[in-house]
Amino acid sequence: MIRLLLLTLLLLATSQASEALVSWNDTVSKQNIIEYVQTVTNPKDKNFIPEVDRIAVFDNDGTLWSEQPLYFQLYFAMDRVKSLASEHPEWKTEEPFKSVLANNIEGVMKSGEKGLLKLVLETHSGMSDEAFSLVVKEWINSAKHPRFNRLYKELVYQPMLELLVYMRANGFKTFIVSGGGIDFMRPFASQMYGIPSHQIIGSSLAVKYENRSIYTEAKIRAIDDKHTKPIHIHYHIGKRPVAAFGNSDGDFAMMQYTEANQKYKTLQLYVHHTDENREWMYDRKSHIGKLDKGLDYAKKHNWTVVDMKKEWKIIYPFEKER
Amino acid sequence: MIRLLLLTLLLLATSQASEALVSWNDTVSKQNIIEYVQTVTNPKDKNFIPEVDRIAVFDNDGTLWSEQPLYFQLYFAMDRVKSLASEHPEWKTEEPFKSVLANNIEGVMKSGEKGLLKLVLETHSGMSDEAFSLVVKEWINSAKHPRFNRLYKELVYQPMLELLVYMRANGFKTFIVSGGGIDFMRPFASQMYGIPSHQIIGSSLAVKYENRSIYTEAKIRAIDDKHTKPIHIHYHIGKRPVAAFGNSDGDFAMMQYTEANQKYKTLQLYVHHTDENREWMYDRKSHIGKLDKGLDYAKKHNWTVVDMKKEWKIIYPFEKER
Repeated sequence: MIRLLLLTLLLLATSQASEALVSWNDTVSKQNIIEYVQTVTNPKDKNFIPEVDRIAVFDNDGTLWSEQPLYFQLYFAMDRVKSLASEHPEWKTEEPFKSVLANNIEGVMKSGEKGLLKLVLETHSGMSDEAFSLVVKEWINSAKHPRFNRLYKELVYQPMLELLVYMRANGFKTFIVSGGGIDFMRPFASQMYGIPSHQIIGSSLAVKYENRSIYTEAKIRAIDDKHTKPIHIHYHIGKRPVAAFGNSDGDFAMMQYTEANQKYKTLQLYVHHTDENREWMYDRKSHIGKLDKGLDYAKKHNWTVVDMKKEWKIIYPFEKER
Repeated sequence: MIRLLLLTLLLLATSQASEALVSWNDTVSKQNIIEYVQTVTNPKDKNFIPEVDRIAVFDNDGTLWSEQPLYFQLYFAMDRVKSLASEHPEWKTEEPFKSVLANNIEGVMKSGEKGLLKLVLETHSGMSDEAFSLVVKEWINSAKHPRFNRLYKELVYQPMLELLVYMRANGFKTFIVSGGGIDFMRPFASQMYGIPSHQIIGSSLAVKYENRSIYTEAKIRAIDDKHTKPIHIHYHIGKRPVAAFGNSDGDFAMMQYTEANQKYKTLQLYVHHTDENREWMYDRKSHIGKLDKGLDYAKKHNWTVVDMKKEWKIIYPFEKER
């Protein structure tokens, strides 16, 4: 019985591998990925990694879906300000809410980090996590990105979806380790990426337990970015990853932490935003998803840097419709 | 191909179920468990739960392994004091270390919560998480419990090991949600219970990220007990469980949180320590694993309360040797 099961699984994995990564051109990034996966999953190879240690961590914004011209979570927060405005007359005169209500994005951005934080805290708190989850679900199934007039959830990278499937088919556990909020991501990211909620790690707000439910408070508990990504990997996963995927200097520490794995061969991959026509082009000087220090290091240390423009046949799933 | 795989899995699950829970007598607790699992995994039943939502949470100390006369993590801490004593001449005169070195358990306990905390902080910090993991592994594979002269890891409950396997065979994800430290549990609990490290949740110390590694500091980050169990379930799992297993008032909030699941039929089970010959007998007045409020509530609300003495054929795996 067990033997039959294993045989079936093996055949299934092989068939999946040959169909995998179809949206990737046969260039160096795809070759690096496949070579890495084949090496570490081959029991006869000296670089073999037991399945239990095949931990792959993925940033979300700019790595699995787009993040321009603003993190999508900020669009959610702004839409939520508009929904809640009638309950908050004070927002008419208070920044950054005033700018949000006037559709003045520049004004919102001018409020700086402090203003953006206020925006998130006010719009993400004050209800049970389960009620908030419904609000997020409604938004993700209706709100559209201004540039593409497509649902935000359609702006996910098809090649990365294939990569997630490919990694899992090869026994990797896939985790999201994002600066985005866990309460924002989990209601939809689970389904979107095929990643269970307990494998979605991110920034979090303080909560309280009352009346047998969890209520979110307007207070940051943890930001998941830069050096705190390895820290949250420690708390949530409890072991050092072997593969890390990111797109910015915010992912650099997590990728170096992965690279420093003393036990296993590792893979580091940066998604480099080089396609201003199909997506966006930005790196060293971007206000969002800045990739500078990490890019220099990646080139010097043989990390895989995906040139989106040249290496990805399509960016978004909806391009298949054409 | 997929159909063949599913068929194989189905046959495998069925054969596992019939062999499951062999160390449980055919009394009410076993019946409750099997009835619950069969109901919620039957796609034709109105109480069916999709696999993705089959979240089962288990306390550890006193629920999966013994916790008397002291939490085993405290024995670890005390053994560690002895190992490190030569580097800490000040411990000869400083409590609770002085009592530990004199094998004076009563003196250690007299130092109270503050003293025990100090003991844990001093012995669990100051090294990388990976180095600490090796220390724990060495201890768990050599240190013996004073009463049984058996390795601590042998004092795991055989019926609960079978229950973990049975739940997983039926598509449940099993999580540990324990007051014990994550850094202490993860190095061995993963293998002992078949639960991956990212599904082991517990109390944690503050850490810093330096030189591409995680270093534990002598500072509490989070205690996972009572009302903070639901809070950590929120942060780590991100959804309300459907089944909760505990043995003390420290698990009561987690079990009520589970019971309040609005969407699905739930199961709550208390392990009641009733066997002073084979294990220990304690509940309402115990200094460790006190079960009082929870026991009253459980009886009133039809929770399953396992009478270890009457319902478990054996307690520990080594009893099979006889």
